[in-house]
Amino acid sequence: MEVYFDNSSTTKPLDEVIDEVSFGMKEFYGNPSSLHNLGLKSERKLKECRGILAKTINASENEIHFTSGGSEGNNLVLKGLLKSGTHLITTPFEHASILNTIKKLEENNIKVTFLEINEDGKINLEQLKKAITKETVLVSIMHVNNEVGVIQDLKEIGDIIRASSNRTKFHVDAVQSYGKLPIDVKKMNIDFLTVSAHKFHGPKGVGFIYIKNTSSLSPLIEGGSQEFGIRAGTQNISGIMGMALASKISNDNMKKNYEKVFQIKKKFVDKLSNIDNIKINSLLNNDFSPYILNVSFRGVRGEVLLHYLEESGIYVSTGSACSSKERERIGGSYVLKSLGLTKDEISGGIRFSFSDDNDESEIDYVVDILEKGLKFLRRIKK
Amino acid sequence: MEVYFDNSSTTKPLDEVIDEVSFGMKEFYGNPSSLHNLGLKSERKLKECRGILAKTINASENEIHFTSGGSEGNNLVLKGLLKSGTHLITTPFEHASILNTIKKLEENNIKVTFLEINEDGKINLEQLKKAITKETVLVSIMHVNNEVGVIQDLKEIGDIIRASSNRTKFHVDAVQSYGKLPIDVKKMNIDFLTVSAHKFHGPKGVGFIYIKNTSSLSPLIEGGSQEFGIRAGTQNISGIMGMALASKISNDNMKKNYEKVFQIKKKFVDKLSNIDNIKINSLLNNDFSPYILNVSFRGVRGEVLLHYLEESGIYVSTGSACSSKERERIGGSYVLKSLGLTKDEISGGIRFSFSDDNDESEIDYVVDILEKGLKFLRRIKK
Ligand SMILES: Cc1ncc(COP(=O)(O)O)c(C=O)c1O
Ligand SMILES: Cc1ncc(COP(=O)(O)O)c(C=O)c1O
Repeated sequence: MEVYFDNSSTTKPLDEVIDEVSFGMKEFYGNPSSLHNLGLKSERKLKECRGILAKTINASENEIHFTSGGSEGNNLVLKGLLKSGTHLITTPFEHASILNTIKKLEENNIKVTFLEINEDGKINLEQLKKAITKETVLVSIMHVNNEVGVIQDLKEIGDIIRASSNRTKFHVDAVQSYGKLPIDVKKMNIDFLTVSAHKFHGPKGVGFIYIKNTSSLSPLIEGGSQEFGIRAGTQNISGIMGMALASKISNDNMKKNYEKVFQIKKKFVDKLSNIDNIKINSLLNNDFSPYILNVSFRGVRGEVLLHYLEESGIYVSTGSACSSKERERIGGSYVLKSLGLTKDEISGGIRFSFSDDNDESEIDYVVDILEKGLKFLRRIKK
Repeated sequence: MEVYFDNSSTTKPLDEVIDEVSFGMKEFYGNPSSLHNLGLKSERKLKECRGILAKTINASENEIHFTSGGSEGNNLVLKGLLKSGTHLITTPFEHASILNTIKKLEENNIKVTFLEINEDGKINLEQLKKAITKETVLVSIMHVNNEVGVIQDLKEIGDIIRASSNRTKFHVDAVQSYGKLPIDVKKMNIDFLTVSAHKFHGPKGVGFIYIKNTSSLSPLIEGGSQEFGIRAGTQNISGIMGMALASKISNDNMKKNYEKVFQIKKKFVDKLSNIDNIKINSLLNNDFSPYILNVSFRGVRGEVLLHYLEESGIYVSTGSACSSKERERIGGSYVLKSLGLTKDEISGGIRFSFSDDNDESEIDYVVDILEKGLKFLRRIKK
């Protein structure tokens, strides 16, 4: 049996999406910037995709800008907006594409406030209010944390920013929430929103960024006037078509998928109550995404447990897939560290992440293997 | 009849490439950064693709870094290398993704020398020799110009740089030459080489950059440690697989394709001798790529002729597809302008660009329509 519980790392593309990408490569190969029919045909298709994506977040078509994925989107907003001497507010457990960009920007005289988070991972809204000053150009906060799944209240954050300053823009890294939780950029007062297609059964290497107003933003990739001048390069039309289709399917089934995945997580959490010496880092309540269940298994090393599970065809992560070096340096996940977990809990952290591809029946199998693995690994460690 | 003579804007992906992309999306959906089998399987596939691409330019596997295309590659090298106070040498007719990046860098105290080009578009090698100083960090020169097809002698340029300075690195924008002309990064003393897949029947939105030594380069997109730390973001595996296959096919057939396309260009040039009042901007000799034929039709506007041809299913460009705004500002192509053409010649420029998909028989049809169009358009303009 194979169980793929690593959907926050990446998802399996839908068959319909694969077909759409093929169709796009065959039929829409003209360069959207070319002046002839084949170019216009591609340009019209891009417009149609913008429309589909815009609708899902209550935006307008020309506010959707195509990128190569989430990391590019996050870099574009931070580097494009933050000039020397400005101030940024963020959290200590953003994705590496935010945190490492900030490290670079700090060399360039950008001041940064990292908001406190409580033991669940929710930010301190009172502190946010106080932290916004005249120099604050950007508040960048992820919607759903990719390792533990905690959800920030975007509406409340947006309201605070709106009430505090005209100058402060709001960026949301929605890579883990888009297509899974409702997002309304108008109601939530969002200025920039980063999305990546491969997290909701779309193709890899394509994403989009919602930009309310491009005028204050410098491009990360300069060149031709594609994407309203904010992102040069011949567009990945077939990938964009695949993303638009995956988006439509995810958004149309959002509620149904949420409920399905919630039941999977619930069953998993219920069954975990039989296992000793663990800490659940992703609670079963509305503050957490049902798509993510992070558990610390005390007395074992996450990597070792990961490979034990893999022997039985169960695929999981110890945290974010792409920050393994950082992980080594600090002996585990910086996300779990920022939540105040003990060394043992950080080292034994495993992320199970679900999608609508999964099934409740998989839980019995996984928990069975998990129990055997823990018994074995905890014994040999003694 | 449909004739696609806009292959320098973009090419039609090969059927094999489309199948490979589908196969990649189905079989290699695991995140290459994941620690489990599915991740390793993807990582191994990436390694295999690096190997295929490396071989085509006489590089090593770990010198190949995947990007989202040519514009990103060009931005990465220029922005990643040029710190305040350094000096860059380039040409006046690079692609917009070089020239617009330079405009931005100039605000940041980067000094730039634009080499003179002769009437054919060849750079002045003596001037290059003299221009290299202690501050010169980079020489960035395109292999084949995308509008007129002139080829620069990379070997000679590389030798001059090697002889002049240890500090000066050599970047080549090979977007229009890769897979069409031989490239050997060792022999040519190249430090950085930018490639984009959609110019050789690969997928759009994917490319690679050869980097001899990453140590002096800052990433453009920061985040995870993908691509040896020089380019964050989950890799577009299926696109990369499509690129590797397209690359293999192009490189394996380089000579055959060159000869085929040369005959197409030759026949076109021969037949053009019957048409009055034109100027051929892409000669039929070894200084020019056979894939590009740029012709100025005096007394007509390029755009108007383009749309006339389009009525008969013939697809061409007036120049670079993506710099239409710039084009409006200066009344035509900056490339043709830099070659010293008259206003009339600039305004009447048309680029016919070929691929191995084309056929000599298409030339009879195109020249026939062209003659009719010119007769008609030149008459109504009087
Ligand atoms: C010479 C040259 N460099 C760079 C590019 C940019 O490539 P891409 O469209 O993949 O960003 C192009 C293509 O338009 C080109 O012709
Ligand atoms: C929260 C978050 N932001 C950004 C990213 C980066 O997305 P991509 O891999 O498309 O660059 C990821 C995925 O790894 C993520 O989980």
